[in-house]
Amino acid sequence: MSGAPKLSICDTTLRDGNHAVAHQLGRADISAYARAAEAAGVDVVEVGHGNGLGASSIQVGMAALSDAEMLRTAKAELRTARLGVLSIPGFASVERDLRPALDCGVDEVRVGAHCTEADVTRQQVTMLRAMGVAVKGMLLMSHMASAAKLVEQARLMQSYGAEAVILMDSAGAYTPEKVREKVGELVENLDIAVGFHAHNNLGMSVVNSMAAIEAGATIVDVTARGFGAGAGNAPIELVAANLHVGQIETGVQLFGALDAADVAQERFVKHVPTNDSVTIASGIAGVFSGFAAPVRRASARFGVDPRKILLELGNRRVVAGQEDTIIEVAMSLAAEQQASSRV
Amino acid sequence: MSGAPKLSICDTTLRDGNHAVAHQLGRADISAYARAAEAAGVDVVEVGHGNGLGASSIQVGMAALSDAEMLRTAKAELRTARLGVLSIPGFASVERDLRPALDCGVDEVRVGAHCTEADVTRQQVTMLRAMGVAVKGMLLMSHMASAAKLVEQARLMQSYGAEAVILMDSAGAYTPEKVREKVGELVENLDIAVGFHAHNNLGMSVVNSMAAIEAGATIVDVTARGFGAGAGNAPIELVAANLHVGQIETGVQLFGALDAADVAQERFVKHVPTNDSVTIASGIAGVFSGFAAPVRRASARFGVDPRKILLELGNRRVVAGQEDTIIEVAMSLAAEQQASSRV
Repeated sequence: MSGAPKLSICDTTLRDGNHAVAHQLGRADISAYARAAEAAGVDVVEVGHGNGLGASSIQVGMAALSDAEMLRTAKAELRTARLGVLSIPGFASVERDLRPALDCGVDEVRVGAHCTEADVTRQQVTMLRAMGVAVKGMLLMSHMASAAKLVEQARLMQSYGAEAVILMDSAGAYTPEKVREKVGELVENLDIAVGFHAHNNLGMSVVNSMAAIEAGATIVDVTARGFGAGAGNAPIELVAANLHVGQIETGVQLFGALDAADVAQERFVKHVPTNDSVTIASGIAGVFSGFAAPVRRASARFGVDPRKILLELGNRRVVAGQEDTIIEVAMSLAAEQQASSRV
Repeated sequence: MSGAPKLSICDTTLRDGNHAVAHQLGRADISAYARAAEAAGVDVVEVGHGNGLGASSIQVGMAALSDAEMLRTAKAELRTARLGVLSIPGFASVERDLRPALDCGVDEVRVGAHCTEADVTRQQVTMLRAMGVAVKGMLLMSHMASAAKLVEQARLMQSYGAEAVILMDSAGAYTPEKVREKVGELVENLDIAVGFHAHNNLGMSVVNSMAAIEAGATIVDVTARGFGAGAGNAPIELVAANLHVGQIETGVQLFGALDAADVAQERFVKHVPTNDSVTIASGIAGVFSGFAAPVRRASARFGVDPRKILLELGNRRVVAGQEDTIIEVAMSLAAEQQASSRV
């Protein structure tokens, strides 16, 4: 990167946070929070179903509002902040989802893929870039790939025309050392901006965000009170507090960030995300946090410790889409238990 | 330190955590948790009123049980883990409090003082040491003193006979860099063990505990689910998870720590500690967390933003005992507000 890159805070309360309420954020919630985020000075307000454009479905959950309703509602409150959306090829398609979203005033699109499958973003990134839309790449579950692999995948996104690549810590599995290593490698080997999106399963979301900045990341994702599924995200108010303490400048004002988190808590953060044994085991195992609920169900059904299921899923390096493995692991652990109780 | 120092986890759920429930932990709570902490493999179980021995009073809060009742209840559950107490001269005296506590089976005493007043611990440390009791020193609000000052004060404690000195981050104001700096200086300049006691006001309790260990601390304080006043402490389950991930050996077993936290949450952690605007402002300001409640009251009474009160208290470097300053600051901020609204 040339010049002195400004630090950009992307507030994904109204997208990733939507996971925490089964995508049920309503119009008034979106309006109030978009206004608060705008006042706080965030750079981007990301809005939508937790899994992004076009994801509302019986399988992953029906959103309370259509993509267009969510986007128009937020856009009406934004002056300086830009409206962002997430697009995961498979959920979102160009004609059905992306074009209508752009008509709602979307300013930037993040196109995401599993950390080893950047090639699936090619079509969307290329097309959006050709249309003159700001587009960034997102590498999901990025703890599962080596720094070298991530550099390779991020370079693909860069070659398609992405103006930034964001590493997602989808399982909350990173330590600050790993953040410094991987973000540092990307910063050194890319010509575009690098971002980091933290989760809190190991209690490291705030320090990992700060470590990413130290390592040269210029985009950091946050949510109000860490609003998000399971252990939640990096709280905007704590990232803002640490930026204040560290005297690191961004457009975000400390009291504005604290206010935004208060607004979210008053309106829709019924439970501030905290850790429990399952979210922590999920972070240790590096397993996608969406596995937590089915793991709890399998644990109850087969009488097996959910932490053992998660650690075994981690050993098998499962990824989203391999939910069937949960039952298989639970059954085999149950059989082992039974065998050892007979001895 | 010579040899390879073993990492000692001090579980202060039943002492510092008692602050979170106005010192109302009951017999069944103490029994159940002491048993869980013992099973988890912690080195020390610290028990008592939040402010330690002899502190139960109308001024700082009456405990549900006497010191002796709390200590005997916990001791009955401990086999390998040692029973610890906190003694702050002023609250606790030798004859009235310490001797009876030792009769209840206390294995070690921590004698605490403000970070610049180690000399007030001299009498108790010397006497306990002469009696053959294991005794450690604690420096409260240690973020307020320079590394050099802390070394000087810790050396005093060492000269009295303390076998360790623990830095308390009473306001949750440390960043990992500061932890590394101050713990590192102490480790380098003392012949005794060094410990760290984190609070979570800036979302850094877990990483600060890990940073302390990296810098050579061999004692780390934790509580179940971070149970403690305001933003809470370093959660045993998250410290254990990060020790597991970092392959750092202690006597604490991962699943045991997760179980202990579950036991605490089922029994007495009604609300898992989280941050809000006041706890965060308190961490930024480096103000004693006990000020939060009176600051909220003064804020309501004088119509002044509690965050502004806290930041100004931080500028004035107030410490516990100077609660009158809260009203003074709130009144002067209210007067300023009134003056500027007249312009």
